[in-house]
Amino acid sequence: MIIVPIQTAQGDYQVMIERGIAARLGEIVRAEFGSPRIMIFTDSTVDELYGRTVQAGLRAANLDVSRFVFPAGEAYKTFRTVESALEILAEERFDRGDLILALGGGVSGDLAGFTASIYRRGIRFIQVPTTLLAAVDSSVGGKTAVDLPQGKNLAGTFWQPSAVYCDPDTFRTLPPQRIADGYAEIIKHGFIADEDYLIHLEKLPCWEDSLETTIERSIRIKAAFVAADTLDRNERRKLNFGHTFGHAIETVTGFAVSHGAAVAIGMVMASRLADRLGIAEVSLTERLEALLRKYGLPTEFAGGGGGSETFARAAANDKKSGAGKITFVLPVRAGEVRLTPFDIADLQKIFALAAE
Amino acid sequence: MIIVPIQTAQGDYQVMIERGIAARLGEIVRAEFGSPRIMIFTDSTVDELYGRTVQAGLRAANLDVSRFVFPAGEAYKTFRTVESALEILAEERFDRGDLILALGGGVSGDLAGFTASIYRRGIRFIQVPTTLLAAVDSSVGGKTAVDLPQGKNLAGTFWQPSAVYCDPDTFRTLPPQRIADGYAEIIKHGFIADEDYLIHLEKLPCWEDSLETTIERSIRIKAAFVAADTLDRNERRKLNFGHTFGHAIETVTGFAVSHGAAVAIGMVMASRLADRLGIAEVSLTERLEALLRKYGLPTEFAGGGGGSETFARAAANDKKSGAGKITFVLPVRAGEVRLTPFDIADLQKIFALAAE
Repeated sequence: MIIVPIQTAQGDYQVMIERGIAARLGEIVRAEFGSPRIMIFTDSTVDELYGRTVQAGLRAANLDVSRFVFPAGEAYKTFRTVESALEILAEERFDRGDLILALGGGVSGDLAGFTASIYRRGIRFIQVPTTLLAAVDSSVGGKTAVDLPQGKNLAGTFWQPSAVYCDPDTFRTLPPQRIADGYAEIIKHGFIADEDYLIHLEKLPCWEDSLETTIERSIRIKAAFVAADTLDRNERRKLNFGHTFGHAIETVTGFAVSHGAAVAIGMVMASRLADRLGIAEVSLTERLEALLRKYGLPTEFAGGGGGSETFARAAANDKKSGAGKITFVLPVRAGEVRLTPFDIADLQKIFALAAE
Repeated sequence: MIIVPIQTAQGDYQVMIERGIAARLGEIVRAEFGSPRIMIFTDSTVDELYGRTVQAGLRAANLDVSRFVFPAGEAYKTFRTVESALEILAEERFDRGDLILALGGGVSGDLAGFTASIYRRGIRFIQVPTTLLAAVDSSVGGKTAVDLPQGKNLAGTFWQPSAVYCDPDTFRTLPPQRIADGYAEIIKHGFIADEDYLIHLEKLPCWEDSLETTIERSIRIKAAFVAADTLDRNERRKLNFGHTFGHAIETVTGFAVSHGAAVAIGMVMASRLADRLGIAEVSLTERLEALLRKYGLPTEFAGGGGGSETFARAAANDKKSGAGKITFVLPVRAGEVRLTPFDIADLQKIFALAAE
């Protein structure tokens, strides 16, 4: 078992990475949390794949387990779903000492974490990510959210999980595209913080090789940013590399492009922009593109949705905008990025430069 | 101006108490917060009374002010109201640096604080309480909440205001019953923490005399509990004196009894129970009853809603219950209370004892 300690301004916890751990959570949860009641919070797809296994493992340790299953899909990342979950917790008299278990990808984690953070003003939750993307990204760091009609993730909280249990065996049921989504964030981690890690990724013969080590290294990188700036005011924002452009692509295409693909293209755009501005090391963009291609990710926006004006408008609506400025994360060299604010009035020019 | 510093585990702030301050917030907010955009969050009743004055004062300092007005009443302390507010904030592109201003009583403060705590994962808010109850109780300490169909305050957060501006002139429009609601909490503060304060309350010729001092002393007492235990796990729970019985009365009567009246009766019940158990100082209940009567509060439940069995069931559903136990706050002597857990199985007996 690999154990990664996470330190945050809201409390510390551990990530445990081990094949098959999802089926063996009963004794582990008992040892860590005593005998709370547990609400498994998952979507219909993941429930069919892993719901029974996780539940059986918990019940084998005599834990009292309930389930909240919502229909799979980002369309259900809403207040309605959270409200249903809260009402079920209240009906079943869940208490401040009880536990929510988020089983699934980013949507389940965001919803379960948000629900846990507001039920009776906050109860504990644990993450059991079943996608590579959630394992290396959203399951660690405590961002929770729901979408509003005006945009994604506009309501939420910072609420840290009390533990993360990562079972790489659960990724076997993911289609290649969703593995690639995970690698977009993994590659991002290398570019923003650690050239050695990039070299590791460049050398890996196949994505499945030494997967636990890859997950561990990615989580360690993310954890350092979260420890430095849990509430995402400064340093943590470097994790947004590729995301400002990426979100604009997602918005403009109505989320027809997956998150990983959008971030991949967004990183290339940020890298090109850094090139044009003379900030980036020579050949950084080529290196980024080669690595993205290796892991099945796109490097160019295939088009649709309009020109740089449309993109600029989408980015201006992005929630990281503030006081007439929008902050981009620009690469300087492999393993180093810089936060660079631009005037919103200049966004169209920036998108034009980055797309060239 | 009276200034009371508040220290919490989630950050420090100040309460400023001054007659007429509600009309002069412009310069004060500017000095403290720069020039954020401000959303005044208030109900229809308070909006008619003070909305224009507060808005004019802020605009006089060239601040950009929007308004969110919801229909007055606890019935609107729901997710629906919060969702509407969030959507308006998103429509108007409110930013992490902007500010919500809660203008009104406890419902406005709970809703505004909850909205502020989850919009873009948390923005700042300030409290301008316009009821005595909110001034001495809910505006300080950072508890936010909405009701669920299953019970009051079942969803919410701990989120501290960035400042509290208390204008006792706004209490002039309150009916006597609502002034009495405030005094129920004020008397509670004396009983749980400070006999000198009780003597001050016993000597006061009229509720309006030295009102600023009374507010200040109550807030200082509450602040000490919040500083010691911001997240309400131990010491802060002493502020629940009278509330476990009080909530049961509110529930059983369908909230026909006001919060202050319910807490008043609840304190008498807790005091009688402490008497019966031999915990309380002789004549404590008489002293409590005399003080409650002086400030226009009831000391006996007028009936309706069923016997001790019904009450016991209502209390068992109370959110402070946990793991088969329910904790009551019992008075020991003037200025001192004790947290005492009882088995839920014994609740009916306890209610019978307390009602005698």
